Amino acid sequence: MKTVKYGIIGIGNMGYTHFKSFMKGAVENATVTAIADPNEKRWELLKKDFPDAQVAFYKDGSELIQNADVDAVIVAVPHYDHPRYSIEAMEKGIAVVCEKPAGVYTRQVKEMNAVADRTGVPFTMMFNQRTLCTYRKMREIILSGGVGEIKRVNWIITNWYRSQAYYNSSDWRATWTGEGGGVLFNQCPHQLDLIQWVTGMTPKTVHAHCHFGKWHDIEVEDDVTAYMEYENGATGVFITSTADWPGSNRLEVTGSRGTIILEEFRDNRPANFSYVQTDDERKFCFETKNPFGKPTVQEVQVETDGKNPRHVGILQNFTNFLLGKEELFVKGQEGIKGVELMDAMMLSGWLNKAVSLPVDEDVYLAELDKRRAASKKKTTVAEVENVDMSGTFGS
Amino acid sequence: MKTVKYGIIGIGNMGYTHFKSFMKGAVENATVTAIADPNEKRWELLKKDFPDAQVAFYKDGSELIQNADVDAVIVAVPHYDHPRYSIEAMEKGIAVVCEKPAGVYTRQVKEMNAVADRTGVPFTMMFNQRTLCTYRKMREIILSGGVGEIKRVNWIITNWYRSQAYYNSSDWRATWTGEGGGVLFNQCPHQLDLIQWVTGMTPKTVHAHCHFGKWHDIEVEDDVTAYMEYENGATGVFITSTADWPGSNRLEVTGSRGTIILEEFRDNRPANFSYVQTDDERKFCFETKNPFGKPTVQEVQVETDGKNPRHVGILQNFTNFLLGKEELFVKGQEGIKGVELMDAMMLSGWLNKAVSLPVDEDVYLAELDKRRAASKKKTTVAEVENVDMSGTFGS
Repeated sequence: MKTVKYGIIGIGNMGYTHFKSFMKGAVENATVTAIADPNEKRWELLKKDFPDAQVAFYKDGSELIQNADVDAVIVAVPHYDHPRYSIEAMEKGIAVVCEKPAGVYTRQVKEMNAVADRTGVPFTMMFNQRTLCTYRKMREIILSGGVGEIKRVNWIITNWYRSQAYYNSSDWRATWTGEGGGVLFNQCPHQLDLIQWVTGMTPKTVHAHCHFGKWHDIEVEDDVTAYMEYENGATGVFITSTADWPGSNRLEVTGSRGTIILEEFRDNRPANFSYVQTDDERKFCFETKNPFGKPTVQEVQVETDGKNPRHVGILQNFTNFLLGKEELFVKGQEGIKGVELMDAMMLSGWLNKAVSLPVDEDVYLAELDKRRAASKKKTTVAEVENVDMSGTFGS
Repeated sequence: MKTVKYGIIGIGNMGYTHFKSFMKGAVENATVTAIADPNEKRWELLKKDFPDAQVAFYKDGSELIQNADVDAVIVAVPHYDHPRYSIEAMEKGIAVVCEKPAGVYTRQVKEMNAVADRTGVPFTMMFNQRTLCTYRKMREIILSGGVGEIKRVNWIITNWYRSQAYYNSSDWRATWTGEGGGVLFNQCPHQLDLIQWVTGMTPKTVHAHCHFGKWHDIEVEDDVTAYMEYENGATGVFITSTADWPGSNRLEVTGSRGTIILEEFRDNRPANFSYVQTDDERKFCFETKNPFGKPTVQEVQVETDGKNPRHVGILQNFTNFLLGKEELFVKGQEGIKGVELMDAMMLSGWLNKAVSLPVDEDVYLAELDKRRAASKKKTTVAEVENVDMSGTFGS
């Protein structure tokens, strides 16, 4: 195999963005040979935009998987169907790039991971934010002990502004039946993955305050403040919303030997990426005789490689992996981690009490099903086709 | 009256700091004529440092109040006794400067306020951080509608580093009987006042996760993460600790028409004080037809008067007020607000559930009394006299 042939299942916002990347040659040794989408208006738009594209069209992802000449598929459909198509492709021996989140509830993601484990089919998740130089560097510093034992992880990630028009743009958006969740499930899967990937830690319990349809006329959550506790005693908060504008994106990790703060400024001003190293605070605390003594502190200039390959980086890595040229950057099975955390936050919000991880998948599904049973299809949809996503933050 | 004669009750850390301010003439038209402290070693130190000081010494604050030639007293004793001495002075017609917090539990503060109301005696709280130009400006912007309707108030205030030696420096410190609380009661009274003064809003409910003796060998809380909800639907977090180093101090207030962020950088680097104005997000949200549309946003340069009179500023204002030259800057009765909030956080932490404000004073006192009954006097005290507090953050 010299060129990897991709099929794209779903050419809504993200699927079409990926298609365009391939068409402009952004991913080396890769091509798109097939598209699946039930909406034929989208086929026509694509043909109009790319009259020379040599792709086969299918109404449904299963049809594509069973019939198309593809080595890999990109699953870019609404969240609930991520596992279904991924599983079907793996069973057929077709490699899978799954959009985030890996699924809506952990049971379906566990099924997908079990198939991935059994078949050994190459599988990755579109965790494009893991490719950003800042997060890679942060992980490198933290996992090498650069902040010592972590005490506190605070992420204020409120720069996901969405208007009512966004929620009205598809009938599945922000409904229990169509999407299964809101800001946690659609906007925050990256952060819910990164907060674990960067720190190497998964919360033990969460107590989340989820507000449903607080700022928009939607069923699902659009404002969440979650408190987290970790096995080692660390605590943290995760704060998100789609109604703050311009919002903040500030991640702070404090440990016994240092603190890293990564703050994205607005208007594309450079990020504040600060790192201080200190004496071992835990040791100092009990050794000093000076009531107002402080451990020494030293600011460290952080050097990154400056590379942010994003979505194309994930596709290039997966292509190279399939061609035997590179290690896999994101193991697909790791998608479960973010789903565990978002489900824990959601369940905590529903039950209004602290919830332990991993969540009880039966309880979760029962609570979700209650809401799906009462869910209403939107009547005021003004579908907007293939909106340019390039302006949205790291989606 | 041309010069206000002050008595200082308690010459531990703060009381002695105030004494030194008077002695170096930092407060115009004011002098110290009396000191009360049970610890005669402190008298000797003071006499050694200031051999020319013309002050009368008393073993106890009540003795000073009943006998000394003073117009006003500064109550700078451990927290529990703030209301007691303040009340006694007011009943005698002596003006009162009360150190923060106004008290430990709301019942005692309500009693103090009732006496202040009845007697009409001049009364102020040492809310020196209200004098900082940044907070004054923030309040001015917010109360004049500069961020619109507030949606979110997040304060990460973790730059209160304290070692075990600090807690070992007095036998009353960080015990239920001696101090009645930890980081909320000793370090954060300023922030718990400011978070209300600057926003003009008091939380309706809080759910606080208080950790007791988590980082130090103490009885009381040294790490708190509180989630807050306001009457208008706004939410927020208040995060504090005495074990983070160097820690953060970042207050963010987001509203429908703008956001203000005030972050103190470390090492005396200038604060990040950013203010953006936006279109009315609530209106925009439902009017735009563009799914990825955003309200306009404009960065506003914030100009302050640059003045930070701090403790001396409070003392000067009170002196001028007593001399009929100036309005009172901090009305003493407002001390109850911070006590309500800190008690709500503490009670929530004790009960591990959300608590409404104002707190039930009987429930609070019953819970406090349980802990006081089990409280142990410290056996490992290494008292350090009159430590220079100038290096501590805004205390």
